[in-house]
Amino acid sequence: MKLISYKYKGVIGSYRTGLLYEEGVIDLQESYRSMLLHEEEKELVNIVDTLLPHTPDDFFKLGLIGIHRAKEVDMYMKDQHITNLFISRKDIRLGAPVPNPSKIICVGKNYKDHVAEMKSDIPEYPVLFAKFNNALIGPEDDIEKSSMTNKLDYEVELAIIIGKEATSINEDEALDYVAGYTIGNDVSARDLQKRTPQWLQGKSLDRSTPVGPWIVTTDELTNPSNLNVKTLINGEVRQSSNTKHLIFSVPFIISFISNLITLEPGDIILTGTPDGVGMAMNPPCFLQAGDNISMEIENIGTLENTVVNSRK
Amino acid sequence: MKLISYKYKGVIGSYRTGLLYEEGVIDLQESYRSMLLHEEEKELVNIVDTLLPHTPDDFFKLGLIGIHRAKEVDMYMKDQHITNLFISRKDIRLGAPVPNPSKIICVGKNYKDHVAEMKSDIPEYPVLFAKFNNALIGPEDDIEKSSMTNKLDYEVELAIIIGKEATSINEDEALDYVAGYTIGNDVSARDLQKRTPQWLQGKSLDRSTPVGPWIVTTDELTNPSNLNVKTLINGEVRQSSNTKHLIFSVPFIISFISNLITLEPGDIILTGTPDGVGMAMNPPCFLQAGDNISMEIENIGTLENTVVNSRK
Repeated sequence: MKLISYKYKGVIGSYRTGLLYEEGVIDLQESYRSMLLHEEEKELVNIVDTLLPHTPDDFFKLGLIGIHRAKEVDMYMKDQHITNLFISRKDIRLGAPVPNPSKIICVGKNYKDHVAEMKSDIPEYPVLFAKFNNALIGPEDDIEKSSMTNKLDYEVELAIIIGKEATSINEDEALDYVAGYTIGNDVSARDLQKRTPQWLQGKSLDRSTPVGPWIVTTDELTNPSNLNVKTLINGEVRQSSNTKHLIFSVPFIISFISNLITLEPGDIILTGTPDGVGMAMNPPCFLQAGDNISMEIENIGTLENTVVNSRK
Repeated sequence: MKLISYKYKGVIGSYRTGLLYEEGVIDLQESYRSMLLHEEEKELVNIVDTLLPHTPDDFFKLGLIGIHRAKEVDMYMKDQHITNLFISRKDIRLGAPVPNPSKIICVGKNYKDHVAEMKSDIPEYPVLFAKFNNALIGPEDDIEKSSMTNKLDYEVELAIIIGKEATSINEDEALDYVAGYTIGNDVSARDLQKRTPQWLQGKSLDRSTPVGPWIVTTDELTNPSNLNVKTLINGEVRQSSNTKHLIFSVPFIISFISNLITLEPGDIILTGTPDGVGMAMNPPCFLQAGDNISMEIENIGTLENTVVNSRK
């Protein structure tokens, strides 16, 4: 399944959870209601907003129960050949799949060739740092280049969306705690990132970090450890690698973090970027207003955003 | 005013916002309702949960409007000599003043003598790093020592609570964006903090970071830049300084962060710790289960917690 956060174009108001198909988009809660009516579960229809909340944030707080109900809807749509619930893709706008996660945890220095191009050392333990939700934007938003930076850079990363509270879990059970995967662009202001020993101030600028375009659930994407990953800037390939080159694998990262920090449903983990960032080019080449960034991860899709100058 | 997050002892359920007086505690929403009835504002009584939400998180989302209404309640209590709304301090338990802030931003290396004892360099810009809400506990909770660390350390810090959305504000207007101040213990696992170049994993262990005991609002604490700050471990003074020694002052920090990251009501900023941490002692002396940590900041109060071994 492809879980989306969407709203009708031009409509003000909160995003809703949906599913994306080739035929278009369905609203998850409305379709669940339709399914319950079809199954004559009339008492459940009255509590549909509790069973399957319409906002993505509340949907993800349910954890894997929500994903399970979404799967029931998915089966119903396919088995019953339901077509009257489809909304045209052209009529909607996609937002960040989880607009307000309780955490965005990033892993740095997690591809050997990227560590080399940054003239750094292979870490003995995963390097963890944070972004805050002020940075988060969706697949149809523009990346805002703050006037505080002249060295804005891109970083394509496989993003993990947590599906279940995770404390001190083992590596071999880690994937059971995943709701799905998407793409994250860990946009980094290199000048701000490097002017103090801690990277946060270069990593969490307002409206700098796109995540999306949707979450591919684990029934469809079973192996996160062999996915091609690519970045094109204005059509030119800059990053091209595969998640099999991650120094610390997806299951290891989840287990590692969960032994320090309890993970909650909806939490986003950005797993690190491969080589090919703008700062490592000769000469370095940073993002400017008007630049088009297209990031592809195999079996997920494409996250494409444009850079604009922030009005601040 | 002293804003608290409280619930009745032994009661399961969410914390409520209150005010603390020498005579005891009042529930802010119930007292506001009483005031509205007294003023014969019956239509407003019907929407009291919108005007003054009962949970601390929702209360702080209102920003300074909420603080202003709390002040009206405070005046009403004093002017009318209301006594029947008081709850005994003994019957309630205090929680973290803001249980789920949208951000916890910490400033590192912000006292010269602490920079020296850590054998580090005076920073040119504020060093910012993050904690997540999994770390946050209240003044009556125990600090959980994870089995992942053998080098748990304390850091007393003046904590700023933001009262109003702040983007790109100047230093001279910065204090207008503050709701109040409290005490934070930036508990740090030195072994985890230092094993990678980024500190996050040593700074955000589950249930490690007490904040409280209450928020002193800016009508009562007007100058955050001349407050004595002290830590006692099992009764022995370990840290003793004054916020006048901050390298980057409270107004500077707020302005600096707001130019990078939009601050929201309820956000917590920990302003850095003075010298005297356990790691800098000779030999180093780290926290163990049973240790009592008492932190005092002038005009705020005392934050006192005990260390226990985490059951994980």
